[in-house]
Amino acid sequence: MAVRAAVAGASGYAGGELLRLLLAHPGVEIGALTGHSNAGQRLGSLQPHLPPLAGRVLEPTTPEVLAGHDVVFLALPHGQSAAVAEQLGDDVLVVDMGADFRLRDAGDWEKFYGSPHAGTWPYGLPELPGARAALAGTKRVAVPGCYPTAVSLALFPAYAARLARPDAVIVAATGTSGAGKALKPHLLGSEVMGSMSPYGVGGGHRHTPEMIQNLSAAAGEPVTVSFTPTLAPMSRGILATCSAKARPGVTAAGVREAYEKAYADEPFVHLLPQGQWPATASVYGSNAVQIQVAHDEAAGRVIAISAIDNLAKGTAGGAVQSMNIALGLPEDTGLAATGVAP
Amino acid sequence: MAVRAAVAGASGYAGGELLRLLLAHPGVEIGALTGHSNAGQRLGSLQPHLPPLAGRVLEPTTPEVLAGHDVVFLALPHGQSAAVAEQLGDDVLVVDMGADFRLRDAGDWEKFYGSPHAGTWPYGLPELPGARAALAGTKRVAVPGCYPTAVSLALFPAYAARLARPDAVIVAATGTSGAGKALKPHLLGSEVMGSMSPYGVGGGHRHTPEMIQNLSAAAGEPVTVSFTPTLAPMSRGILATCSAKARPGVTAAGVREAYEKAYADEPFVHLLPQGQWPATASVYGSNAVQIQVAHDEAAGRVIAISAIDNLAKGTAGGAVQSMNIALGLPEDTGLAATGVAP
Amino acid sequence: MAVRAAVAGASGYAGGELLRLLLAHPGVEIGALTGHSNAGQRLGSLQPHLPPLAGRVLEPTTPEVLAGHDVVFLALPHGQSAAVAEQLGDDVLVVDMGADFRLRDAGDWEKFYGSPHAGTWPYGLPELPGARAALAGTKRVAVPGCYPTAVSLALFPAYAARLARPDAVIVAATGTSGAGKALKPHLLGSEVMGSMSPYGVGGGHRHTPEMIQNLSAAAGEPVTVSFTPTLAPMSRGILATCSAKARPGVTAAGVREAYEKAYADEPFVHLLPQGQWPATASVYGSNAVQIQVAHDEAAGRVIAISAIDNLAKGTAGGAVQSMNIALGLPEDTGLAATGVAP
Amino acid sequence: MAVRAAVAGASGYAGGELLRLLLAHPGVEIGALTGHSNAGQRLGSLQPHLPPLAGRVLEPTTPEVLAGHDVVFLALPHGQSAAVAEQLGDDVLVVDMGADFRLRDAGDWEKFYGSPHAGTWPYGLPELPGARAALAGTKRVAVPGCYPTAVSLALFPAYAARLARPDAVIVAATGTSGAGKALKPHLLGSEVMGSMSPYGVGGGHRHTPEMIQNLSAAAGEPVTVSFTPTLAPMSRGILATCSAKARPGVTAAGVREAYEKAYADEPFVHLLPQGQWPATASVYGSNAVQIQVAHDEAAGRVIAISAIDNLAKGTAGGAVQSMNIALGLPEDTGLAATGVAP
Repeated sequence: MAVRAAVAGASGYAGGELLRLLLAHPGVEIGALTGHSNAGQRLGSLQPHLPPLAGRVLEPTTPEVLAGHDVVFLALPHGQSAAVAEQLGDDVLVVDMGADFRLRDAGDWEKFYGSPHAGTWPYGLPELPGARAALAGTKRVAVPGCYPTAVSLALFPAYAARLARPDAVIVAATGTSGAGKALKPHLLGSEVMGSMSPYGVGGGHRHTPEMIQNLSAAAGEPVTVSFTPTLAPMSRGILATCSAKARPGVTAAGVREAYEKAYADEPFVHLLPQGQWPATASVYGSNAVQIQVAHDEAAGRVIAISAIDNLAKGTAGGAVQSMNIALGLPEDTGLAATGVAP
Repeated sequence: MAVRAAVAGASGYAGGELLRLLLAHPGVEIGALTGHSNAGQRLGSLQPHLPPLAGRVLEPTTPEVLAGHDVVFLALPHGQSAAVAEQLGDDVLVVDMGADFRLRDAGDWEKFYGSPHAGTWPYGLPELPGARAALAGTKRVAVPGCYPTAVSLALFPAYAARLARPDAVIVAATGTSGAGKALKPHLLGSEVMGSMSPYGVGGGHRHTPEMIQNLSAAAGEPVTVSFTPTLAPMSRGILATCSAKARPGVTAAGVREAYEKAYADEPFVHLLPQGQWPATASVYGSNAVQIQVAHDEAAGRVIAISAIDNLAKGTAGGAVQSMNIALGLPEDTGLAATGVAP
Repeated sequence: MAVRAAVAGASGYAGGELLRLLLAHPGVEIGALTGHSNAGQRLGSLQPHLPPLAGRVLEPTTPEVLAGHDVVFLALPHGQSAAVAEQLGDDVLVVDMGADFRLRDAGDWEKFYGSPHAGTWPYGLPELPGARAALAGTKRVAVPGCYPTAVSLALFPAYAARLARPDAVIVAATGTSGAGKALKPHLLGSEVMGSMSPYGVGGGHRHTPEMIQNLSAAAGEPVTVSFTPTLAPMSRGILATCSAKARPGVTAAGVREAYEKAYADEPFVHLLPQGQWPATASVYGSNAVQIQVAHDEAAGRVIAISAIDNLAKGTAGGAVQSMNIALGLPEDTGLAATGVAP
Repeated sequence: MAVRAAVAGASGYAGGELLRLLLAHPGVEIGALTGHSNAGQRLGSLQPHLPPLAGRVLEPTTPEVLAGHDVVFLALPHGQSAAVAEQLGDDVLVVDMGADFRLRDAGDWEKFYGSPHAGTWPYGLPELPGARAALAGTKRVAVPGCYPTAVSLALFPAYAARLARPDAVIVAATGTSGAGKALKPHLLGSEVMGSMSPYGVGGGHRHTPEMIQNLSAAAGEPVTVSFTPTLAPMSRGILATCSAKARPGVTAAGVREAYEKAYADEPFVHLLPQGQWPATASVYGSNAVQIQVAHDEAAGRVIAISAIDNLAKGTAGGAVQSMNIALGLPEDTGLAATGVAP
């Protein structure tokens, strides 16, 4: 019997991608769809790529509307999930695609988000050590941020295998959908096409503490992260170029072996054959992650590069994958490992 | 029990999209994959977006390799399908994604393709009148060209309902994948990005006779077609802007009604609500067709605009849809009506 | 001695392009720069591509600020130019880049713009018959719309030479800057990239009466125009595909000859050699126009295709070219005929 | 009196951009244009954005053709410049836009280019300490690589001021024109659009020794460089994100001050106001360089980011700037500091 799922925040990019995935999921029946300023509008005008739901009308995000579902996905602005989640019963699976329950450190939360810390939920990145056990049977999931997904999967094997020193340098390019459907001048097509530009340089990006949390856990020691995000002229995709000083004695073969071991059994993480490099086009619309590693002997660094679709594996795909685990379904139910390319 | 399908020409864009769709098809098992100059190479290096098939090695396109399958898809250069098809038994379903068996008029074929006409097979555009009956149970399918798919679906209801005079004017924009994985300077990313340009102007495009064939059949009289294709800075998608002089007495309401009637029961054709216009992004990776119509009173024209994904509904999706009908499967098996957007 | 020029509306795309051109103009000194909601801001934050003006601060658009200049360019929203122009002296050259003074027919203006008609000024498309004479020495210039520039230059020779019937069908693709720096969801990069979509279909676009006005003047009879604009995934450029039924006796050679004659002495209009087609990339940032023509015998139509940069020749370049004529300067002063490509 | 300039390799992207700049240069008369496989073709078909030269026919690259010019620009494949340069007199200014004469270390050259080292010429990056003196009056110029231009300008002030440790980590995104007009599958528009991907990871890129050479000279000690280039979905532009561990005692104010001092008098390098970040769109078609710096206290790193146009300042613009110095012309003659945006 299908589980019945509601989506709070169905008018945005994350909500739209989630609905695309849920429509392809054989075990889910789509229930209430809610919006805030868009309540009362037809979904067909807001998400024209989802014809099976075109006639649906967005309802307001209230406890009454969200009641009576087995799963509730929250695709809300940061800081708004806690208030909604509180009103949902303990027997409902709540999957938060916002940042509210990702960080363990209340101080980090308050520094980067400026409001009281709401708590910490099981973390929806199943590929991290221990994550599947925490997700199995849980009623609360904090879906990771898109950048932390790409970066953590690129680097945690290097830290877990003690190949790298605890000073990571990360430069990542994201498609514009990562910024949401926000009406800001720098997100206009005219500004974005043909342009690469950085933002949040020097430690200012909100995803930095989440990366530090994940990498430090893998390393067993505090890891610092220098993170520079850049906006790329594409709708979707993250390419994360990550590196750290190699520890003494590290070899190219040793690096390769650590990653092969880490990802041997992962259904969605593809360590590419040597000589082939990740491309965001290859994971477009897919839950797959492409990873490649190198050891730069001259510079003495381990380099790991990952490509994901920020809306799929980076948000909605990760949410569905975590839901599957929480519900005891096969982890890949309804999720494609194939990208839409070219 | 799954049917076993071979794909001849698995290294190109059409072949790659077909494999993506077949991987998602619950009733198909993927058999032999062949190539010509790429025989012997791993599919993973040629189609990096298809991880489940990454380890497969392309075989040469020979009768021996293609033997023992229930379905053989031909994604070969124009003019090469007949020789391969001849060697396949009458009990094998052969789906030709090339142009070889689309045209009924041998003269048209020879004029535009310069080689002897090989014949005419049931035409894989199920939405055209009579097409489903011809496809049911057939062992040979000619998949339409991508432009004729977009144009025929946009205009045939106007002709079938006798709303339009037999002089169609069509300007269509295509993504670059429509030109295939061809190493030509004008297809380089540096040339394509930021640029719109026409080609094959003035009746020179090979898809013109196929449009004339379809529209004339719908109109019950010869239709002339002025067709201007343009290359747009995107990987996928066709937007076809089609118009013709309105016949006397035609009204906006009458136009609307004709299209509503024509597409009331079609699973993949979506006549948009008034006020909403097609966008290729909405059908990205999808088998859906978006259509909108208008009656320009001042200019006295019926205007119909369609958006498709040239590789999906325009090629590989149409092929799978036709295969489903030929095999007696539900027509939408394995085919998404949702687009990957934004 | 340089003329001193003010720009009202310096924060938008048209204003920015105008300033780029004026900086390269040896006979112009840039004076006051004004804005509305942006008054008080540094130009460097609004137009980061113009370092020589980065330190300039936008002033409010008032008569006092605009006083004391030889030329005032108005890059204001439609309907706002008249009020500003009234307050400028008759001895000041006023170049309006908005729509206010383009149309001769007050009824057309009111139908499409919904406010009282302010008047008609000499029309800044020098290539049209009689236009240069009207512009020479004038103190008021109405710069054409970007679409009418592309369409009129593509089609007027066919009408002037009586090659075409008075029913023009036009499909044009524009880059997103044509819509201005407007914060609307459909102009977001995420929505625009990878997508082609039409808008204002069926006669609704405000530029239609301007095209009718120009083509009817060339034809010496009323011309109807079916105009479908489409939004393309690029920042700049217009590709206009224009056609009309050929009059009896028209030949390919006759069409070619008419265009060769029309554009033999034009510095910015390039009729391409046969076999070469316009591309918007080739005129990127340039005041050039590329044109090619064909005669489709089978369909009985004359086809003319033009490519321009909507912000350059289509707006700011046309404004500077007209200013040069009005001031008695060589027409191409400060204007590049070369595009920035690839 | 204008100098007469020949361009060897006029059919490629670098050659085309150089011709665009030379057409705008008041002191240059364009002489012979040569090609290899394209000799005999009209430039109009190869570089359709350059109408003033459309009728020119490419000649073969021979000493006879190149004779009789004051300046000869070489835009040839790496390794071919020496043979051509040898045949040109000592009184001719030869500006090599290839790699042949950039490196001082013969071993580096042979390791990365696989042929004998031809020598070292004055280095055409005038902003580096001592470069202008070496260029003044010279008859031989080695134009820097595009990546080394972006990276050296971003980082040399940090090294010159002893702010950073000698381990630089660089991730740069380039537009596809950086790869030239090469017919390779991964450069096709269909592959490039919507995709970010790295290449030459782990020290394999040929521009790495050139960066090491420049940064080590600035630092006065050997600097290691970890360089990861990535291909971005745009035609032009480089965004270089560069960082290094901060030396003890470094502060944000100290970093800012060092860069302000380094670039106070540079006509083409724009250190942006704090809070504003470089964007490649802002320098499109321009000789300008945008730079911003930050001090990430938590990660202990100095971060410097630069944006250039790889074909303009990164190749042809740098060539013209160096030619100006060599000839004793004002350095910015014919070079725009404004970008074509949006």
